[in-house]
Formats: sequence, structure tokens, C-alpha cells
Amino acid sequence: MADNKKMVDAITSMEEDFAKWYTDIVKKAELIEYTSVKGCMVIRPYGYAIWENMQKILDGMFKATGHENVCMPMFIPESLLNKEKDHVEGFAPEVAWVTHGGNEELEEKLCVRPTSETLFCEHYANIIQSYRDLPKLYNQWVSVVRWEKTTRPFLRSREFLWQEGHTIHATAEEAIEETERMLNVYADFCEKDLAMPVIRGKKTESDKFAGAVSTYAIEALMHDGKALQAGTSHYFGDGFARAFDIQYLNKENKKVYPHQTSWGVTTRLIGAVIMTHGDNNGLVLPPAVAPIQVVVLPIAQHKEGVLDKARELRDRLAKSFRVKLDDSDNSPGWKFSEYEMKGVPVRLEIGPRDMENNSCVLVTRHNREKTVVSLDNLETAIAEKLQAVRDGLYEAALANRERRTYVCKTLDEITENLEKHGDGFVKAMWCGDEACEDKVKEITGVGSRCIPFDQEQISDTCVCCGKPAKMMVYWGKAY
Amino acid sequence: MADNKKMVDAITSMEEDFAKWYTDIVKKAELIEYTSVKGCMVIRPYGYAIWENMQKILDGMFKATGHENVCMPMFIPESLLNKEKDHVEGFAPEVAWVTHGGNEELEEKLCVRPTSETLFCEHYANIIQSYRDLPKLYNQWVSVVRWEKTTRPFLRSREFLWQEGHTIHATAEEAIEETERMLNVYADFCEKDLAMPVIRGKKTESDKFAGAVSTYAIEALMHDGKALQAGTSHYFGDGFARAFDIQYLNKENKKVYPHQTSWGVTTRLIGAVIMTHGDNNGLVLPPAVAPIQVVVLPIAQHKEGVLDKARELRDRLAKSFRVKLDDSDNSPGWKFSEYEMKGVPVRLEIGPRDMENNSCVLVTRHNREKTVVSLDNLETAIAEKLQAVRDGLYEAALANRERRTYVCKTLDEITENLEKHGDGFVKAMWCGDEACEDKVKEITGVGSRCIPFDQEQISDTCVCCGKPAKMMVYWGKAY
Repeated sequence: MADNKKMVDAITSMEEDFAKWYTDIVKKAELIEYTSVKGCMVIRPYGYAIWENMQKILDGMFKATGHENVCMPMFIPESLLNKEKDHVEGFAPEVAWVTHGGNEELEEKLCVRPTSETLFCEHYANIIQSYRDLPKLYNQWVSVVRWEKTTRPFLRSREFLWQEGHTIHATAEEAIEETERMLNVYADFCEKDLAMPVIRGKKTESDKFAGAVSTYAIEALMHDGKALQAGTSHYFGDGFARAFDIQYLNKENKKVYPHQTSWGVTTRLIGAVIMTHGDNNGLVLPPAVAPIQVVVLPIAQHKEGVLDKARELRDRLAKSFRVKLDDSDNSPGWKFSEYEMKGVPVRLEIGPRDMENNSCVLVTRHNREKTVVSLDNLETAIAEKLQAVRDGLYEAALANRERRTYVCKTLDEITENLEKHGDGFVKAMWCGDEACEDKVKEITGVGSRCIPFDQEQISDTCVCCGKPAKMMVYWGKAY
Repeated sequence: MADNKKMVDAITSMEEDFAKWYTDIVKKAELIEYTSVKGCMVIRPYGYAIWENMQKILDGMFKATGHENVCMPMFIPESLLNKEKDHVEGFAPEVAWVTHGGNEELEEKLCVRPTSETLFCEHYANIIQSYRDLPKLYNQWVSVVRWEKTTRPFLRSREFLWQEGHTIHATAEEAIEETERMLNVYADFCEKDLAMPVIRGKKTESDKFAGAVSTYAIEALMHDGKALQAGTSHYFGDGFARAFDIQYLNKENKKVYPHQTSWGVTTRLIGAVIMTHGDNNGLVLPPAVAPIQVVVLPIAQHKEGVLDKARELRDRLAKSFRVKLDDSDNSPGWKFSEYEMKGVPVRLEIGPRDMENNSCVLVTRHNREKTVVSLDNLETAIAEKLQAVRDGLYEAALANRERRTYVCKTLDEITENLEKHGDGFVKAMWCGDEACEDKVKEITGVGSRCIPFDQEQISDTCVCCGKPAKMMVYWGKAY
């Protein structure tokens, strides 16, 4: 296939240049393409199919926990955005403004939603009167816009796809419970379906969402030792309700303010999957979200019966898995590289000798392990392989995180560890003072990532000031 | 439940005021809520669930015909929108312009996509080099913005949800075939799943999409005799390819222009469903897209065992249907009205006497027909009822269309029919001259809706000028 323009070129190795390795993968695996709209991208079929699989699983988890999907407008009038003080301060500097409709200047400019708390609040004020109207458990799958200066595909772009959950409850307790529930839904999804271990915790005051009482987050560690915030869940108290005058009549017939939450994950998760599981041959996808779980590759396909057998297997396996048959006239070697680049979890090879033995060869992408299996129980064998891929990916990612997690009692220890072993998570005690948080970052380069729910007592004193410590914090450099 | 604020009020009857009847339904059935963003709405859970069901069916049909989903940016730089002359002339007057990002004025203003041909073209130019790269069969599910002056929920709003298919092919023949294929997919979906008969045809020159060689459309007739364009499919020839310099090397190694299509349906289909099937008790939903297909209502629910039985039936039926149990303490009468308003196709009543007889009562929404059925074969009985609802809705809609379709040979006949029988479709011959098309509208009030693929020879002469006729046209007043 010398005239086929698309050859599988080698990509930059991650040891040589991790950032270049990443962008090579998003391009070569055909996940995205750049556009003339700065900071915005085309999500191509293979990339979008990963997102669709994530959506399907998460949407099922949201519905199973009682949530309903809705759709709010994409525009927010300036006056509506301005209603909650902290919120507008956080978002106004990075929104895109619509000032003209057709040939006319608008009376009031509209921002393209950077997030939709204000729209949901306006809606709640219209539809909530009594305790009977609570709770409302809403979600929407949309795109939002934040006018970032520097952008990277999936990790930080001016427009990105996400879901935003928005709920409103009679009591603070219920709302806090919801905030925690949804963080756990995200964590379970990341660990089980994306095979990506995460730390569950709370953000420090300086790092919480604009307008929130508290922000919970899950943090993952990438291959290069940098942290990535993979999902957030916010508890708002009644701050938004007061700003938007949302009140309900309680059972005692008294007007009171309800309590709110919001929570979201984005296409950033695709970036997280790449940087958690990918290797120097390309993408490695966890089976739950892989667009193709099994690629069927005929060997010596010109030999009699091979293609027929390959098609028969494709049709048979399509009942249980997401399967693709590549019967193009590209060489097997080219195909091996292509589907390694695309991170397909299991490759099935079928050739004349396999047919004689009523068997085929299964190769798992992440460790290139080859197994000859009988065609009789093929579905079971593949299901086991897919599970083994998920488990193998999870264990490797967890081992990477453990290897790169440094328990430190002093600032010097932090610096030493990072210099000696490279970037990673630092576990260290903190007094709770923002000045110390800033100083840790200034001196060692790592910022607070989260206050984990699973606390450990590393020492009694703050890693920075030496005063009594209040909590253990995960620190790191972040995407 | 006197203290329950939400009572089922009567709605305006459609005979009294069809427009008011329509907006009463969208509000009372809780499909939408207005917002402070003029011309934009909140699609509430019940309305959004209808759209999700439409999406699921259509997405399956698109994938079965080889299409892949992608996601383009929501912004189009002015210079990109300007590349195809007819296209920009059609859309520029009705786009929303983003002029500022954060606190800075943009170097080039961006419009919020009114449709995405220009973005797809830019992408094609990047990824298509050889005949091996063709065809590309893409679709995306997004929202678009058109700055309309007057708006109505679902029918015409400044932002609406839709899917836009975009395909590119080696030859004109293939592209035309695709254009027709997708129109047929839409027509099949409308007729089978929405129980809404449609006319398949071609738009006249004056009515085609900005930049298209030809536009195909399906036209449905609403309860009030007005026509509604329910879906369109456009053949672009190589006009966009020339404007965007998209070329490919063919098998003879010659650079040539490919041929394109686009096609779309929108949340307008929800409006079409309301105005095709709704009645004076509210919404009537075709089972394929109804969020609740069966509502289980316990009768005398305080009596022993009734609620348990109702729950058992709900759990059992949930395996086969979309089911809701309403075990609230609202009265059965209130519940009957509520689920009639919401258009639930089948109501299942279960009370003490039914339990004694091992039976229940099924009531179909569209004709209020009651049947007592045994609990033994309940699934079969309900499946038959749902099919009967779909068939009954389709037949009623078809009968309405036939009753309101007037075969006319002269302009006077058109006027007489409309005055005597009310609005409807007019079938009349046309010479093909745009002056006649304009004059028919000026004199009789009906515009050309489409040139149907199923042609009939009503007379030999144009209904307007009396010169030889070239084709039969459907005329009507349109939403």
C-alpha cells in the first residue's frame, strides 16, 4: 500500500517530550483536528465515540440515582450573570460575549454560558413554591465556553463538552449528601470504567468553585507525575437561593431558602485516559469506553476461506462486543500498528493455521500478551481478556501513583523527592493557613490538590510553618 | 389534595384558539418554561425525554446507514462564513455575533453557528486528499442559533436543538442518492415512530437552502390545516467544494471536486407531534417517543394489597415498557386528567375488584377506549394496545390530511376550498415560473410547500397562468 497516504508513523516518545507525545496521540489516533477557531477543535468520530460511551455509562448512573435531563439556553443575560457576586467575579473575566443579533446591537449583551448555575436558579425561582416541589435533580449534556489564553486538546479548550448536574433540596443535609453521592459516582466511574484510580477529597478555600460553600474533587495522577482534576461536585448552601430569591413554603407553612449543588465532568476525561494509560505505541483504551473493543484481523487473507471466517467471527462477536473487521488490503504489520495507535484493547488474529486448529490468537493491547484460544468458547475468552485489560490498566496506574506519591514532613523533603524521583503527589500536613499554602507552592512548586477524605496523620506539624497541623493534604503540579 | 398547588386546569380548546391551545399544552404538560433570554426556553424533563427518545431512534437509523457522530466548534469566524456567497447571504442577517472574549475585543468576530456547512468544509479540506478518503458520512447532535424576530416554543426559537448530517462523496450520483436516502429515513421515522404522515418532495428554487443545488423536504399537515416542514435534506453539488477548495485525487490521479449533502431535523418535531395528535385534553404521544408509555394507577389504594399489587405490576412491566406508577395521594380523577394532559398512551387501572378477577383495566389515551384484560398475558395486551395507539394516531392524522387536501384547477377553486373547508393542502399544477408561484401566494395565501415525488396529472395547465403545466405542487400556509 505504498500509495496509501495514511501510514502509521512513530510518535514522539513520552520520555523525550511528554507534551508532544500527547498531542501526537490525539492527532494520530484521529481523536481531534484543529480548526481556524482558536482554542476550539473538531472531535472526530473516533474521539467522539469515546465520549458517547462515557456519556452512556454516566447518564445511566445519573438516572439510576434519580436525575432527569433538561436543556437550558446557551446564553445568559449580563444582569442574570451578575446576580451572585462571587460567581460573576469568578467567571466574567473568561466569558465570550454576544453583542449583536443579525445586524442589530442587542439591548443587553449575552454571555455564552461558562456554566449554568444562574440559568438553573432563574428556572427554580419559577417552578418551586412548596416543599412538595423539592428536590429537583437535574442534569444537562451541553458544551460551555471559557475564553482561555492557552489551550490544549481535551485538557483546556475554549469550548468543551460536559455534563452539569444541578440539584435543589429542602435541607442542607440532603444537599451535602447529594454533593458527596455524585462525587462517589464520578470516582466509581473513573475507577471501574476508566481503570483510573482517583483520590476523593475536598478543595481548599482558595481553590473552590466561584459561589460554592465547598467543592469536592477527584484527583488522578498522570503518567508524567502531574495531577489532573477529573471531576468536581459543589455544595452551594443557600447562597444562590438568596441571590435569586428562591424560597419555598415548608411543612410549617414558613418561607425558607432551599439548598443547592452542582457537579460536572468534561471531555477532559478523554485527556486523562490518554495520559493515564497511553504508551509509546499510542493510545490504550479501557474496554468500557473503547469504540472498538475487539479488532478482527485476517492473516494471509488471500488464502481460501480466511476472509469468510473473519467475517463470520465479526458477525458472531458483534452480538456481545463492539467489533471491527479490517479486511482492507493493508499489510498485517500496518494493521497491528494502526490498532495499537488507536488503543483497541483486544486484537483477534485469524489465519489458515488457526482455522485448521479451530482456534484464533488474542493479543491484549496494554501488555501485548498473546493467547491461542479455541473458537468454541470465544465469547468467554474475550470477556475475560477485556476484564484482564481493565484490571491490568488499573493496577499499572495505581502502581505508578504509589511510586510517585511522596510522604513529606518538611519543605526540603518535598523538594528532594521531586528532584530525585520526578513529579508526583506529595502527602504532607497543613495548618490550614492560606499563607502556608501559597508558600509551599512558591518554594516547592506544588499546589494543594485536595484534602482527602481518607486522612492520615503523617506528623503533628504543618509542613511549612511548623505550627500544629489540622489536616493532611495532597499537593502536586496540575494540568 | 386541596393544598396541592398543581391542579389540572382545563386548557383553551383548539377550536377556540389553536395558537393558545398549543402554548397551553407546552406549559401544562411541562414540556418547556420561558426564560429571561428572549426567544430561548428551558426544555423541562418531560419535554427533553421526548427529544431523547427521538434522538435514540434516529441515531440508530443514522448509524445503521453508516454515519458517524462528530462534534464541530459552536463558533464560525466571519471570514469562514463568508466563503460561500449564497450561504452567507442566507444566514448572515440572522446570526448572533460574539465580539468580545473576557474583557478583550476579538480580532475577528465569531458567529454562533446557525448551521455548520462552513465548519465541515474547512475540516474536509484538511482530511480529504484521495478517493480512498471518501465518502465521509458525518452527523452531529448540537444546538444552533438563528436570531428570529418572532418565536414560538419548539416551532421557531432563537436557539434550537437539532442534528445536522454532513456527507461528502466522490460523485454527484452518490451524493444525490444520500440526499434521498436520508429524506426517506426522516419520512420513515415520522410515519412509523411519530405516527405522522408526510409528503416527500422537492422544494422550489425560491424555497431551497442557501447554497444548495436542491432541497428535499417532508411536509406534514397539522390539525389546523397548516403545513409544517418536518425535515430537510440538501444536495450541494460541488459548490461548497469549489468555494472551500476541497479536492481529491481520483483513481486516474486527477484532482477533482467532491460532492456534498446536508440534512437535519430539529426539536420542531415535538411541536409537530403536539399539533398532529394533541386534543382538548392535552398532549397525545405516539408510544415510540412517549417518556411514559404506561402509567399504573392504583384505584382505592388505601384498600389492602392494592399498592403492593400496583408496585408489583410496575416492576414487572418496567422490563418491557417505560412505566410510571403514581402512588401519590392525589385522587384518581386528578391523576386521570394529569396523565391525559401529558399524553401517556396507555393508562392501567388496578383496584380491589380487578385483583379479585386477576385482571386490570387498560385505557388508551387517544380514544379513551377501556378494555379489561387478564394479568396473565398483560405484556402482550399492552404491546398490542401500544401498536393500536400508533396505528389509530396515524389513521386519524391521515384522515385529517385527506379531508383537508383540495385538488384545484384554478385560483378561484383554491380560494373557495380554503374559505369553505378551512386551511389545508392544495394540490395544483404549476408551469415552473416563479412569478406564478408568487402570484398564487399573493392571491390565495398559500405558498408552494413541495413538488411531491408522487406526481399526479390534475390538469394540463398551470393553476395560475394557464400555460402548459410542468408539475404538480403541494401548496399551503406554513408554520
